[in-house]
Amino acid sequence: MADNNFGRKLRITSFGESHGALVGIIIDGFPAGITIKTEFIQTELDKRKPGQSKITTSRKEADKVEILSGIFNERSTGAPICMIIKNKDVDSSKYEKYKNILRPSHVDFSSIKRYDGFADYRGSGRFSGRITAGFVMAGALAKHALKKMNINIFAYTKAIGEISDERKYEEKSFENLRTQRENSIVRCLDPEKSNEMVALIEKVQEEEDSIGGIVKCIIKNFPAGIGGPVFYSLESTLSHGVFSIPAIKGIEFGVGFEAATMKGSEHNDPWIIENERIQTSKNDAGGIIGGISTGMPIIFQIAVKPTASIGKTQHTVNISDMKETQLKLEGRHDPCIVPRIIIVLEAITAIVLLDHILYQGEFKLEGKNN
Amino acid sequence: MADNNFGRKLRITSFGESHGALVGIIIDGFPAGITIKTEFIQTELDKRKPGQSKITTSRKEADKVEILSGIFNERSTGAPICMIIKNKDVDSSKYEKYKNILRPSHVDFSSIKRYDGFADYRGSGRFSGRITAGFVMAGALAKHALKKMNINIFAYTKAIGEISDERKYEEKSFENLRTQRENSIVRCLDPEKSNEMVALIEKVQEEEDSIGGIVKCIIKNFPAGIGGPVFYSLESTLSHGVFSIPAIKGIEFGVGFEAATMKGSEHNDPWIIENERIQTSKNDAGGIIGGISTGMPIIFQIAVKPTASIGKTQHTVNISDMKETQLKLEGRHDPCIVPRIIIVLEAITAIVLLDHILYQGEFKLEGKNN
Amino acid sequence: MADNNFGRKLRITSFGESHGALVGIIIDGFPAGITIKTEFIQTELDKRKPGQSKITTSRKEADKVEILSGIFNERSTGAPICMIIKNKDVDSSKYEKYKNILRPSHVDFSSIKRYDGFADYRGSGRFSGRITAGFVMAGALAKHALKKMNINIFAYTKAIGEISDERKYEEKSFENLRTQRENSIVRCLDPEKSNEMVALIEKVQEEEDSIGGIVKCIIKNFPAGIGGPVFYSLESTLSHGVFSIPAIKGIEFGVGFEAATMKGSEHNDPWIIENERIQTSKNDAGGIIGGISTGMPIIFQIAVKPTASIGKTQHTVNISDMKETQLKLEGRHDPCIVPRIIIVLEAITAIVLLDHILYQGEFKLEGKNN
Amino acid sequence: MADNNFGRKLRITSFGESHGALVGIIIDGFPAGITIKTEFIQTELDKRKPGQSKITTSRKEADKVEILSGIFNERSTGAPICMIIKNKDVDSSKYEKYKNILRPSHVDFSSIKRYDGFADYRGSGRFSGRITAGFVMAGALAKHALKKMNINIFAYTKAIGEISDERKYEEKSFENLRTQRENSIVRCLDPEKSNEMVALIEKVQEEEDSIGGIVKCIIKNFPAGIGGPVFYSLESTLSHGVFSIPAIKGIEFGVGFEAATMKGSEHNDPWIIENERIQTSKNDAGGIIGGISTGMPIIFQIAVKPTASIGKTQHTVNISDMKETQLKLEGRHDPCIVPRIIIVLEAITAIVLLDHILYQGEFKLEGKNN
Repeated sequence: MADNNFGRKLRITSFGESHGALVGIIIDGFPAGITIKTEFIQTELDKRKPGQSKITTSRKEADKVEILSGIFNERSTGAPICMIIKNKDVDSSKYEKYKNILRPSHVDFSSIKRYDGFADYRGSGRFSGRITAGFVMAGALAKHALKKMNINIFAYTKAIGEISDERKYEEKSFENLRTQRENSIVRCLDPEKSNEMVALIEKVQEEEDSIGGIVKCIIKNFPAGIGGPVFYSLESTLSHGVFSIPAIKGIEFGVGFEAATMKGSEHNDPWIIENERIQTSKNDAGGIIGGISTGMPIIFQIAVKPTASIGKTQHTVNISDMKETQLKLEGRHDPCIVPRIIIVLEAITAIVLLDHILYQGEFKLEGKNN
Repeated sequence: MADNNFGRKLRITSFGESHGALVGIIIDGFPAGITIKTEFIQTELDKRKPGQSKITTSRKEADKVEILSGIFNERSTGAPICMIIKNKDVDSSKYEKYKNILRPSHVDFSSIKRYDGFADYRGSGRFSGRITAGFVMAGALAKHALKKMNINIFAYTKAIGEISDERKYEEKSFENLRTQRENSIVRCLDPEKSNEMVALIEKVQEEEDSIGGIVKCIIKNFPAGIGGPVFYSLESTLSHGVFSIPAIKGIEFGVGFEAATMKGSEHNDPWIIENERIQTSKNDAGGIIGGISTGMPIIFQIAVKPTASIGKTQHTVNISDMKETQLKLEGRHDPCIVPRIIIVLEAITAIVLLDHILYQGEFKLEGKNN
Repeated sequence: MADNNFGRKLRITSFGESHGALVGIIIDGFPAGITIKTEFIQTELDKRKPGQSKITTSRKEADKVEILSGIFNERSTGAPICMIIKNKDVDSSKYEKYKNILRPSHVDFSSIKRYDGFADYRGSGRFSGRITAGFVMAGALAKHALKKMNINIFAYTKAIGEISDERKYEEKSFENLRTQRENSIVRCLDPEKSNEMVALIEKVQEEEDSIGGIVKCIIKNFPAGIGGPVFYSLESTLSHGVFSIPAIKGIEFGVGFEAATMKGSEHNDPWIIENERIQTSKNDAGGIIGGISTGMPIIFQIAVKPTASIGKTQHTVNISDMKETQLKLEGRHDPCIVPRIIIVLEAITAIVLLDHILYQGEFKLEGKNN
Repeated sequence: MADNNFGRKLRITSFGESHGALVGIIIDGFPAGITIKTEFIQTELDKRKPGQSKITTSRKEADKVEILSGIFNERSTGAPICMIIKNKDVDSSKYEKYKNILRPSHVDFSSIKRYDGFADYRGSGRFSGRITAGFVMAGALAKHALKKMNINIFAYTKAIGEISDERKYEEKSFENLRTQRENSIVRCLDPEKSNEMVALIEKVQEEEDSIGGIVKCIIKNFPAGIGGPVFYSLESTLSHGVFSIPAIKGIEFGVGFEAATMKGSEHNDPWIIENERIQTSKNDAGGIIGGISTGMPIIFQIAVKPTASIGKTQHTVNISDMKETQLKLEGRHDPCIVPRIIIVLEAITAIVLLDHILYQGEFKLEGKNN
C-alpha cells in the first residue's frame, strides 16, 4: 500500500525491484516536441551504475536504458515515457540464507511490519539503492529540458568521513567542474582531497566497514519567482524528493544549520544591483526565500549515511526463533555510496525543479527545433 | 497560482494573510466521532501566540480559535473542519512606507517575481509566520487523535545561538518534560541553559538584532511499519511538512549530518530483544529505516534561522527607483522565533504522522466514547 | 473521512453545513492580478439562492458573500480565496423530530453507515444542495477569468417532466439568451414551454410532490487542444465535477445516448474549412473528441431527479426500533430543483474548464489592467 | 503534458501506444499478500483482445500479459505492479498515408492542437482503444481483490442500435449470467436479441459502416457507506473512470435520464426491512444516494458511440494544403466496439470501487491464505 508517484505536473512513477526483472520509471507530463536521445540518458546511468570503479560494488550490470513508450521520431510526444533497465547480475542466494536475520540499519524489520512479510526482500527489493536508477533516467530527461532554459544542476562530493572540501564553486564554470569531477572516482573537485578520500574508502573497505559523506548541490540560472509559501515551498518539494533517495539523513539549504548560531545582521543577505539586476551580495539563503527562488544560485547539501551493508560481524536478531545472534554479511556492497548518490541527487533535483516550472506554466521552448 | 493543500488522506488547506481579516485552516479527512473541545486547540494556540513573554513580538493578538464547520454535538462529523483566528492588532502603516524597499532575507523580491506584484505584502501576507497559527489549530486536532493511539510528540529548544542543550530526553516522561519546558520562556529543558538563552536573546534584542537556534522533536510510541519507500518515506513527508514553516534552513533525522563522518559499524543500530519486543540497542537511525518507522522513537531536529526582521540598519534596494539604499525597519518583531516555532513543529509533525496512519488504514478508535 | 478537494491546479475546497454556521469554499491557484468585485459573485449567488420565486423553497437566506482572504486592493493576489455565506434562517426542529426515520432517497442511511452516526444530519448537513452555494462563489470567479479569454458558459432548462424544449441555441448570442432565461422563473428559453413548466411545477407542488428535469449546457469559444486521453479527458473531469452536485442522475455529451442507435456514417462529424478555420459541419461529438476540445461548442446535458423531499406520505423505516413506518415530511422544499441547479452547473463547469486551461499553462491575461 | 494517473490510494498509471512497443499499466497501492495468477489476468485480456470473433477487428494480437514487477512468490508484495502486453501485429503504413487527412470524429485534429503535432498518430497512439488493455489488466487484479469481499461486477450488452434488451438481471446469479454472456459473441444475455444484434452488426459491416450501443453494469454485495459528498461521490469517481474509456458519450445511474420525467413520489425508493437488513423496495437510485452506497446493487449504464473508423467515403480536410477532400479509410476496425468495451467497463469499475474501499480503510482480507 505504498505510494510511488511524485510531482504535480511532471509526475514520475517508480517501479521494479533490485532482484526482480527490472527497475523502471514513468515520467508523465513531459513537454511534447523535445528531441530525446538514448545516449544522454545512458551517459547519466553510467555514472550511477555499479562496478564503475574499485570503490563501488562489484555487481556487474550494464544498466542499459530501454525506452518503452512516449517517444516517436526521436522526440517526446507528450505521452508518458516509460524507461527501464533490466536486472542481469542477480545473485539472490545470500538473501535466502539470511532472510530471517535482521540486517542492522536495513529495512528488513520495518518492511515486515509494513507488508506483513510479503515484500520482496531479495537485494532489499523496493528499498534497494538500485531503485534510484529510475530517478536517474527521468532526471536525465528533466535536466535536458532544463538546459533548454539554461538551468544547470551540479552536485559533487563535499566530504567523505572527516575529509571535507570547504571551497565554494558557485562562480566556476559547471562544464569545467563536471570534467574535473569525473576525473575523480570519488567525485570530489579537489584532487588532493580526492586522493585522501579514496584512501579512506579503501581503508574502510579493507576493514569490511563503510563510511558516510556529504554531497553539495548547486543550481545556476534558476529563474526568480518559482515556488511558493507553505506546502509548495521549494524546500518542501526538494526535500520531499531528496529523502526519497535511500541513505539520506539530513538536508540543509544555504548556510543551513550554521544559521542556528547566527545573528540576523550576519545571516541576512543585502540586496544590491549588479549588472542591472537585483541580486544579493552574498547568498546565505541558498537562493530561496519564503519558499520561492530569488534568482541567486540554489544551494543545498545532504548528509549520506555509511552504507548499512558491511562485512564486519554485527549483533542482531533472528526472527524465526526470536533469539539474538551474530551476523556476518557476505555479498557485494559499496563501501561508500556517496560517489554514486551524486548523480541520483542531480536527477531528483532536476525532476522537482522542472515540475515547479511546468506547474507554474513557465516552461519555454524556443521553437520546434529542440 | 500557489498550492496550499497538503496531505494524502488527512488534507489541510491553509488560507488567510497576516494583515487580512483572518488566518485559517481546513482539515479534511479527520475521523468522525472524536470529541473536540475548543479548549484544547486554544491551549496550543496560546503557546504560539505573540506577546506571550518579554522575548516575543509585542503584537497583541488574542488568537481565539473559532470553529466554523465540521463539529456537531462537540464531536467531529467526518466533514471538513474549518478553524480561524481573526487578525485584530493590525498596523499596516509601516508596510506601506517600505513597500518599495526590499527587506533583506524577506520574501518581498521573490514574491513580486512570483505574483507580478499583486501579493498582499502587509505583514508579509501569506509568507508571515502568522500563517502557521493554522497549522497549530489543525495540529491540535491531529495530536488529540494520535493520543488515542498513545502516540506522543514533543519538541523543545535544543540551542539558541551557540548555547546548546546536548542531553537526551527520549527516556523521560513527556508529561514532566512538557511542564518543565513551559516553565522556560525560551522552551529549553535545562534551567541553566534556559537562563543563558534568555540572556542572549535579550542582548540581541537590545542590539536590534536577532538570533537563530535548533529545535529537536521526539515522537514516542509510534507504531512500526508506517511509511514506505521512495516518495512516501516518513522523511520525505515530514520534511515536506516541516519546510512549509517559514525560517527553517535544515532538517536531520537521528544522528543526521554526524552520520557523514561515521563508519557503518558505528552507525548501524544493532537489533536486540527487550521486553519481548524487537528493538535496537541505540537509535542513530532516529526511528526510521527505509522510510518506514521501526517502533523506536522518531527523532529529528531542525535549524531555525535568525528572524529576518531586525531593527539594525541594512543595505538594500529601492525597487521604485532601482537604487541601492539603507533600511531601518520599525515594527514589532521576535528577536528569536525558536520558542514559538516549537509548537508549530509539533503541530505539523502530528498532521503528517496522522495522515500516514489514516492513509494506511491503521487508525484505531476504541469504541465510540472518544 | 471524506475528500472535499477538487482540481489539479485550480483547486477548490468545500466546507460548511446546511444548518451549521455557514457554507464556504476556498479557491486556490486562481491567477494573481484579476480584479474581483463582490457584486459579480453576489449576482451569481442571487440566482441560486432560495426563495427567489414562487416555485422555490421558502427558506429565507440573504446568501450574502463574504470574501475572507486572497483579495487585496480589489484584486486576486494568487493566495487562496476563501468565501462564505452565513446560514441565518435555520430551523432544525423538524430534523430533530425525524432524526431516526429514514427519508426515502435521502442520504440518511448511507451517511450513518459512512460516518457511524456522527454526521450533522440537520438539513442534510454536508449533503444539502446548499453546499453548492460554495461552487457558485468559486464558479463566479472562474467564469470571470474565462471571460477574459472570451470563453462563455450558458446553461438552461431543457425539460421539466415531459415538457421539453428541443430547439438548438448554440448559434444565438449568449447575452440575449441570458436575458431571455432570467425572464423565466423556471429558466427555460421558450416562453410557451416556460409557462407549461411553471404550471406543471405548481401542480406537483399542490400535490405535495416534486418533479425532475434536464439541464443543457453550452460552452462557446473554448479553444481547441484542451484535455487529454484517459484520466484527463474533458468528459472525465467535467462529469467528476458535475456529479458532485446532488440530485444528478446522468450526463451525456453531444448527442449522448442517441449515439447508441446511430451508425458511424451518421454520427461522425465531417471536417470542413469555414472562415479559414478547421471546423465540423455538425457537432454530434459535443465539442470533444478523444477527451480533447475541438474548438466547436462544448455541449452536454444532465438529468436532474425530482427533489427527494416531498410532503406526500411515504413508506420507510424507523432505525430506533427497526420497524417500518410512514413518514410525512414537513419543512420547506423545492418542488423542482432544476431552475436553481442551472447556476450551479455553470459554476462547476467553469471551475473544471479553467482548471484545465491553467494546468496546461494556456491561461492568458492581456496586461495588468484586468 | 497529459495526466495518466488515476486513483486516491489504488493508483493506476497508464502508458504505451497502439503502434509503439507495448501497452502497459502500473497499479500502485494494491494490498500485499494476495495470490496473483497470470491466468486470471489473461482470461480477462482474452475477452477484450482483437480478433476474437467475426464481428471484431481482424488485427491479430496475442495480448499476452507480462508482469514486470510487484509480485514475489506468486503474491502481491505491496509494491507497484507493472503489467504489459506487447504490440505485434502493427501495420502503420496506412497511418503514414493518411497522416495529413483528418479522420472524422477521430482525435487527429484535437491532438495536433494539444501536442503541437508531436503525438504518435499511428493507430491513434495514446488515444487508441488498445490503451484500455491496461485497464483490463489492472481491473483483473481489482476484481480479484473485490471478490475476497464477495463484491461482484457484471456488465453486458443492453443495446446495439435500436435492438435493446430491457430485462432486469440484478436478481440472477452472476455466475450463470457470465456463462450466458460469453455464449454470445455480442455479449447480450437474451439469445434472441443476441442473434438480432449480430445480424445488425454484420449488416453495418457489409455497408462499411459501424453502430453504437448501450452497456449496463451491475455491482452486487457492495457494502453500504462507501463514497461521500461532493468530489468523492461514487458517481463522480465512477464517471471519471468510465469517461477515460474512448467512445463513451453518456452515463446514467439507476433510472438515469428517466428520472427527469418522474415525480418524487414515483422516484423515491421506500425503505423496508428485509432479511433483518435495511433495504429499499425498489432501486431507482441505482444503489447510490448522496454519493454513498446504500448496500443495494449499484446500477449504471453507458452509451457507446459507433466506431469512428469506417470504410465509407467521408468528407474531411487535408491539413497539408488546408483543402477539403474525401477520405476512404482502409485498415482493420471493429464495426461495433460494444462487445469489447464490456470488459473494459468492468475493469475500470473494479478499479474505482477498490480504490474507494482501500481509501476508506475498509478492505478486509481473511487471513494470509489469499
